[in-house]
Amino acid sequence: MRTAGIIAGLGPLAGAYFYRRLIELTPAHRDEDHIPVILLSSPQIPSRIAHLEHRGPSPLPALIHAAQTLVQAGAEFLVMPSSTTHAYYDALSQAVSVPWLNMLAVVSDTIASHGIHRLAIMATTPTVQYHLYDSHLLARQITPVLPDATSQMDIMNIIERVKGQDDLVALGQALYEIAQRPWSATADGLLLACTEIPVVFPVASWNQPAIFSATDILAQHTAAWSGLS
Amino acid sequence: MRTAGIIAGLGPLAGAYFYRRLIELTPAHRDEDHIPVILLSSPQIPSRIAHLEHRGPSPLPALIHAAQTLVQAGAEFLVMPSSTTHAYYDALSQAVSVPWLNMLAVVSDTIASHGIHRLAIMATTPTVQYHLYDSHLLARQITPVLPDATSQMDIMNIIERVKGQDDLVALGQALYEIAQRPWSATADGLLLACTEIPVVFPVASWNQPAIFSATDILAQHTAAWSGLS
Repeated sequence: MRTAGIIAGLGPLAGAYFYRRLIELTPAHRDEDHIPVILLSSPQIPSRIAHLEHRGPSPLPALIHAAQTLVQAGAEFLVMPSSTTHAYYDALSQAVSVPWLNMLAVVSDTIASHGIHRLAIMATTPTVQYHLYDSHLLARQITPVLPDATSQMDIMNIIERVKGQDDLVALGQALYEIAQRPWSATADGLLLACTEIPVVFPVASWNQPAIFSATDILAQHTAAWSGLS
Repeated sequence: MRTAGIIAGLGPLAGAYFYRRLIELTPAHRDEDHIPVILLSSPQIPSRIAHLEHRGPSPLPALIHAAQTLVQAGAEFLVMPSSTTHAYYDALSQAVSVPWLNMLAVVSDTIASHGIHRLAIMATTPTVQYHLYDSHLLARQITPVLPDATSQMDIMNIIERVKGQDDLVALGQALYEIAQRPWSATADGLLLACTEIPVVFPVASWNQPAIFSATDILAQHTAAWSGLS
């Protein structure tokens, strides 16, 4: 199996949740059935959100350094469980010699395979404003459905509070309520795009429309990629 | 902050749970408050349990290679969230140039600081048979209280099933029942020593005696060590 390099810490709780889901979603019955992993969490990487909102320095040099460290330590392909950080995907994937699994592409592929036509998206404000998922979805005949301005502000506020490890159950319930507001009424699918969201969103109690966790989809593809020869 | 190197994958689910607890138990309000981490999970490392039971090859060369990889990638101290694997601690800590946090020692320190005199221990059979915790506990005036032979076999069986990701809720309930059997009656503390156990044990519903998670204690010390200058 190929060793996966994980750029975590974007943020840390979402990275830890992704790693747990990677273990849980790998079809394994013994320790040795699991995929080899090297994970790096470098909290010194400047905030992607602040940079994309023109409030802080670029995280790109630190991200490239993290990627190169992982490759030097033996990573044979890279993944990054953060939709927002895929704003830098093109530059990052050119900076290393190993393949880099594009989360935006594999999430969009999976959603298309479920026959979704109108997808409600809960993401960070930069992910929405930079249209990170839009071209991937539109290329697959899926129309993005975005929150009204107030709901988007509420989502961004909750994401920051998940990063701050406030009451996670209450934050999940608040996201659940936002997902049910009128903005999403015409959608036939709901994407939890920011990887902080599936950490707290009460997915098990969600009825409709179809729900997709970007974290889980990336975890499944990471396990599968590791098995590729 | 100093970068922690984590040797995970011993097993993978316990390693993922440890990493999550490390994030949760770090006093952080923003991404950048978290400690820098490099985590390596190499399922090719031979089974420690099989080797200690004279059924398989030594994991020591692979463990040393993992440790050296982490140090080369920037780890400034090492931790290993697996009590059983501390059977190799002396050889491992001599093979690298950075400090290596001894889980057996910090867990025993913490339990002693709570005034425990008789400690019931739930661990793998090799951890029990090699007396891994005993000298650390006895040096702190704590008497180890071990399961009867049937209960120890039941515990070991459940640990293997946690590694196999069987029904985790049912396995946690089964461990809870074993903890309440007569063997533990004279103890004033209960240690969940194998890091697979806190993944599933329903700690929140436990009343008495005092309960200690080796995972959580190691996570708290890892966060603290990172902050040491």
